[in-house]
Amino acid sequence: MNEFTNRVPDATVRRLSLYLRFLEDFGRSGVTNVASAALAERGGTTAAQVRKDLSHLGSYGKRGLGYSVEELTRVLRSVLGLDSVWRVALLGAGRIGTALFEYEPFRRRGFHITTVIDNDPAKVGARLGDIRIRGEGELERALCEARIDLVIVAVPAPVAQGLVDRVVEAGVRAVLNYAPVQLRLPEGVALRNVSMLVELECLSHALARRVCHSA
Amino acid sequence: MNEFTNRVPDATVRRLSLYLRFLEDFGRSGVTNVASAALAERGGTTAAQVRKDLSHLGSYGKRGLGYSVEELTRVLRSVLGLDSVWRVALLGAGRIGTALFEYEPFRRRGFHITTVIDNDPAKVGARLGDIRIRGEGELERALCEARIDLVIVAVPAPVAQGLVDRVVEAGVRAVLNYAPVQLRLPEGVALRNVSMLVELECLSHALARRVCHSA
Repeated sequence: MNEFTNRVPDATVRRLSLYLRFLEDFGRSGVTNVASAALAERGGTTAAQVRKDLSHLGSYGKRGLGYSVEELTRVLRSVLGLDSVWRVALLGAGRIGTALFEYEPFRRRGFHITTVIDNDPAKVGARLGDIRIRGEGELERALCEARIDLVIVAVPAPVAQGLVDRVVEAGVRAVLNYAPVQLRLPEGVALRNVSMLVELECLSHALARRVCHSA
Repeated sequence: MNEFTNRVPDATVRRLSLYLRFLEDFGRSGVTNVASAALAERGGTTAAQVRKDLSHLGSYGKRGLGYSVEELTRVLRSVLGLDSVWRVALLGAGRIGTALFEYEPFRRRGFHITTVIDNDPAKVGARLGDIRIRGEGELERALCEARIDLVIVAVPAPVAQGLVDRVVEAGVRAVLNYAPVQLRLPEGVALRNVSMLVELECLSHALARRVCHSA
């Protein structure tokens, strides 16, 4: 259905992810066709960049007509792996973990948190939404039973690596890391890091040095 | 006190931010000196990279002794702008905004949220912690009164750019953006983006294509 089979650079995937949001907005507004310039304008980039990014997907634009919002939305969802439901385990039911759990757009995008693990005896057995929190001792069994595709790591930094080693050993191949630590993962396991503190510290560095710049 | 006056690459700042966390852990464990290899091991990088990164700060390591944990911690805090208290305004008191507000490490690092803005009439006037939530109409006055250094954008994507334009107009020079939108900012305003959905979609792309890799 699409010719997108090769590895696409991370920076491109990020922009595709943004374009998808814009297209969904356009779709909700009843827009049926959109020019690369319109996507560029909302994305803070150039029409040439948009066309180049979308060329990774094959050729969907028509000169003068632009892109079909419906078709491009469908293709981007497929490329970004959003046609699937991904089974997600949340490691850590603290403040960040709980906020992520309750973050509705995750579910809408097909990321279903089906398993929650915490090592706090006061939390184990309690419920987060309709999910019973399980202890760390049950980690491997829980990942296997629920056929987890992806884990979100929201535990304190000192325990993150040890847990993730077990997760990888159990066969999980994608990790979204919120712990402020650089995880070591074997080849073949996808890792993305989200760190609010690191981003904030890039900003405070810029403020402190008065060397501000957009990035 | 330190020779670090030039602009340091973003990737380096990110690693410095991680090293600082490791050093603080070492300090709490009573470690007084640390070799570049030990920082490298925890940071998933090489000793040569650590030495290169730290060379941006001047020369603090001693052959055979490594780095003084106390001194290097102090220097890194200074370089990362963490000696200052940064006055932060939170735009958006929804789930994400509230979780950020309650995230204790922010305050420990000197990021003090002193102002909270929301456009929901049901929230305006209510309290988040000990802060009274103010309406969007009060944005400029609130930023000015509290001498805000940095805003955290945690509002829905469609309204983010408009708010940020006003924030920049009011003189704020650093923006941490959680809205899934590419903000357009003038030169001289520092911007960092945190998007859980974009990171997740990079992972689902990798899973869908079975082209997993560490990144």
